[in-house]
Amino acid sequence: MVNVAILGFGTVGSGVAEVLTTNGGLIDRRAADLVRLKYILDVRDFPDSPYSGCFVKDFSVIENDPEVDIVVETIGGASVALDFTVRALKAGKSVVSSNKELVATHGYDLLQLARQHGVNYLFEASVGGGIPILRPLVSCLAANELSQVTGILNGTTNYILTRMIKAGLTFDQALKEAQDNGYAERDPSADVDGHDACRKICILAALAFGEQVYPRQVPTQGIRQVTLADVAYADSCGYKIKLLGRCLRREDGKVCAFVAPHLVPGDNPLAGVEDVFNAIAVTGNAIGDVMFYGRGAGKLPTASAVVADVIDIAKDLKKDRRNQWGPGAEDLVVSGDVLSSRWYVRVNAPLPKARELFGELQALARGGAPDGEIAFLTQAMTEPELRARLAGLELCSLLRVLD
Amino acid sequence: MVNVAILGFGTVGSGVAEVLTTNGGLIDRRAADLVRLKYILDVRDFPDSPYSGCFVKDFSVIENDPEVDIVVETIGGASVALDFTVRALKAGKSVVSSNKELVATHGYDLLQLARQHGVNYLFEASVGGGIPILRPLVSCLAANELSQVTGILNGTTNYILTRMIKAGLTFDQALKEAQDNGYAERDPSADVDGHDACRKICILAALAFGEQVYPRQVPTQGIRQVTLADVAYADSCGYKIKLLGRCLRREDGKVCAFVAPHLVPGDNPLAGVEDVFNAIAVTGNAIGDVMFYGRGAGKLPTASAVVADVIDIAKDLKKDRRNQWGPGAEDLVVSGDVLSSRWYVRVNAPLPKARELFGELQALARGGAPDGEIAFLTQAMTEPELRARLAGLELCSLLRVLD
Repeated sequence: MVNVAILGFGTVGSGVAEVLTTNGGLIDRRAADLVRLKYILDVRDFPDSPYSGCFVKDFSVIENDPEVDIVVETIGGASVALDFTVRALKAGKSVVSSNKELVATHGYDLLQLARQHGVNYLFEASVGGGIPILRPLVSCLAANELSQVTGILNGTTNYILTRMIKAGLTFDQALKEAQDNGYAERDPSADVDGHDACRKICILAALAFGEQVYPRQVPTQGIRQVTLADVAYADSCGYKIKLLGRCLRREDGKVCAFVAPHLVPGDNPLAGVEDVFNAIAVTGNAIGDVMFYGRGAGKLPTASAVVADVIDIAKDLKKDRRNQWGPGAEDLVVSGDVLSSRWYVRVNAPLPKARELFGELQALARGGAPDGEIAFLTQAMTEPELRARLAGLELCSLLRVLD
Repeated sequence: MVNVAILGFGTVGSGVAEVLTTNGGLIDRRAADLVRLKYILDVRDFPDSPYSGCFVKDFSVIENDPEVDIVVETIGGASVALDFTVRALKAGKSVVSSNKELVATHGYDLLQLARQHGVNYLFEASVGGGIPILRPLVSCLAANELSQVTGILNGTTNYILTRMIKAGLTFDQALKEAQDNGYAERDPSADVDGHDACRKICILAALAFGEQVYPRQVPTQGIRQVTLADVAYADSCGYKIKLLGRCLRREDGKVCAFVAPHLVPGDNPLAGVEDVFNAIAVTGNAIGDVMFYGRGAGKLPTASAVVADVIDIAKDLKKDRRNQWGPGAEDLVVSGDVLSSRWYVRVNAPLPKARELFGELQALARGGAPDGEIAFLTQAMTEPELRARLAGLELCSLLRVLD
C-alpha cells in the first residue's frame, strides 16, 4: 500500500483526488500496488466533499505519519510550499509537484535534498500541464545532445494571441474575454508579462542542459505591446505572432535563454498551436526536431501528469530517478542579444530611409496603415546591431522572427 | 560495462553504431555505466568501416558470449529476426528492436519470453521513428484510461499526399518523386498500401488497450485511389487528405482498429503535419488530447529511439519494465464498420438524387469538374448505412471524415 497526501485542495489538488479515485483500478494495476489517498491538507473546510474524511489543517500530521509515502504539493508559490516540501523530503517522503515557481527557483536544492534522503522529487506537471515533456526529455531523448528547446508555454497568452489573430480583438478585448472564460486571472500579469513562461523555460533548460537556470537570469517580455497592426503585418507575410520561451546551448557551453513574442512561420508546427494549447519543440543531434502538444493547463490534464509521477514513484519507492542537475552559475546564462535572427520592425519612417539603413529588406503592407508607418523584415542580425541601425527612428514594434 | 551487439548493419543499424559512438560520453553518463558496442552482425563485409573490428557473421558468437547484455535487432522482417530475437532472449540478453513487423505479429510471445528469462524487450523505434511515443504512452499517460489513438504513421505516404496537395502532382508523379528522393522503396506497396501504418497502429493499440492486436485483424486501405479531384474537393471545404491509422476502445471493451485515408479538418493539428513527418494523437480521460510530432523515419532519428531503449536497459539490466500485454483474441477487434462519422463522397449522379438519398448534405465544388460529377459531405453514419444509400450509383471516391 502506498499512501498519498495532497497539499492544497485547489484546482489541481482536487483534480488529483478525482483522478486517483476515478481511475483507481488502473492506477493500482500500473503501480502494481494499492495507491491510496490518505490526507488532504487545506486551511478551508469542505464538509460536502467526498473526501471529507481525509482533510487535515496541520501539516505536521502528514509529516509525522510514517505511512505517508508520497506528498503531492499543489499549493503554488515559493513560501509555504517550499517549507512543506523541505519538511516532507526530510521526513523521507517523496514529493510530486505542479509548482513551476518552486522548481524554477529552488529545483537544484530540492533535488539535492531528495537525493540525500533517498527519496524523489518529480514535477512533470510543472511544465506543459498534462503534456508529457519532462520525462520524455530525460529518458526518450537520452541518446541526444540537445541543442534547443522552443515552447508555447502559457495557455492564457496563446488564447489571447489566437483571438487577436482570428477574431481581430485588441489585446484588451481578448484579455477581458480570457478572464470571462476563466483562462486568465483577475491580475493577469504572471501570464501576460511572461513570468509563467519564464519559469517553465527555466525548468526545461535545466533538464535539457543539466544546470539550474534561474528566472532572474532570463530576460522576459510579455505580449502587452503586441497590436492588431503587428498581427496584420505578420499575417501578410504568412507568420503568426506567438509568445515563445526559448533556450539554446551555445558551442562555448553557455545557455542562451529568453521569453519574447516572435513571428513564427506558418509552416512551422508551432504556428498551428491555437487557443489554450501548449507545444514544446525540442532539437537533438540525432533526433532532429520533435514536438509535444496538448493542453498546458486545466484541472484534469495537470492532475494526469501529477498522478503519472505518483505511479512512477509508487512502482519503486526508493529508486533513484537520477533527475539531478547542477547548481548553475551567474555567468552560465546569456541573453538573446547574442542570437542572430531576422526581425520584424514597425516604424514611423519613410521606406527609402529603412532601405538605406538595412539594405535588403522585405517590405510589408496592411490595409488601413496610417501615413508614415512602414513595416518590414530584416536580414539576420543580433538585437544590438538592429537597435544601432534603428537609432533615432520612431520605433513602434520590434519582434524577433523564429527561423 | 554494458556490451551491445547490433544485428544488421543497414540504415538503422549503422545509425545506432554512429549514435553510440558520437554521443558516447553522454550515453555513459545517463546510463551510469560504460555502454560499449562489441559486435555487429551482418552477412556483408565492411572492411573500411570504423567498426571493422566488431563485425561477425555467425549469430552464435553473440548468443554464446556471456558479456553481451543487450542485442539491438535492426534486421527487419519476421523470419531471421524472429529466430535471433528468440535465441537472444533465451540466452538471457535483453533485446531492443526497431522491427514493427515482428512486434506487431509476435509481440505478445516475445514479451512473455523476455519476462520468463528475466530480461527486457523494448521497441520504442518501431513506431514513429525517433518520436517518443511508446514510453510516454505507458508511463506519462499511466493515470489515464485511453480511449483513442490516431496517427499519421507513415512518412512516405504523408510525403506523397503533401506533394499532391501542395504541388498538384498526381499520385504516380508524387510516388516517383518520393522514390527519387529515397523516401519510397522501389516496391512501395508496404507504404502506399498501408501495411506499414497497419503494423504501427497494432503496436499502439496493444500498448494503449493492453491486448495484442494482429495486423490481419485490421482492415487496411492505402492511398493509391486518392486523386487530385479528391484533394481539390477536400481543399474547397478546408480539409486535408491524410492516411490515418486509428484505434478506439469501445464501451463493450472491443477495439475498433483500421487504416484508411481520411479528410482531416484544417484546424486539427494532424492537418498541419507535412512531408515525411509523423504525428500521433492520443486521447485519455484525464489528459484530453495530446499529440507527439517528429520525423517518423530516417537513420539518426530512429537510432535515437533505439539508443534511448539501450540506455534505459543499461541503467538497470534486470528490472522488469512491466510492458506486457495480453494475447488478444479473434473477437477482440472490430472493423471501422461500427464507427459512425461523416463521409466525403464523389459520385457520378445528379445532385438532386444525392439530396433525395441523403437529405441534408454539404455540396462541394471544384474547378474543371466533368459534367455529371458531384461531391459532398454527408451527415454522420456508419459505412454500411452509407453504402446502402449509395447502392446503384456510380461511385468514384469514398473517404471518412475525421471528426
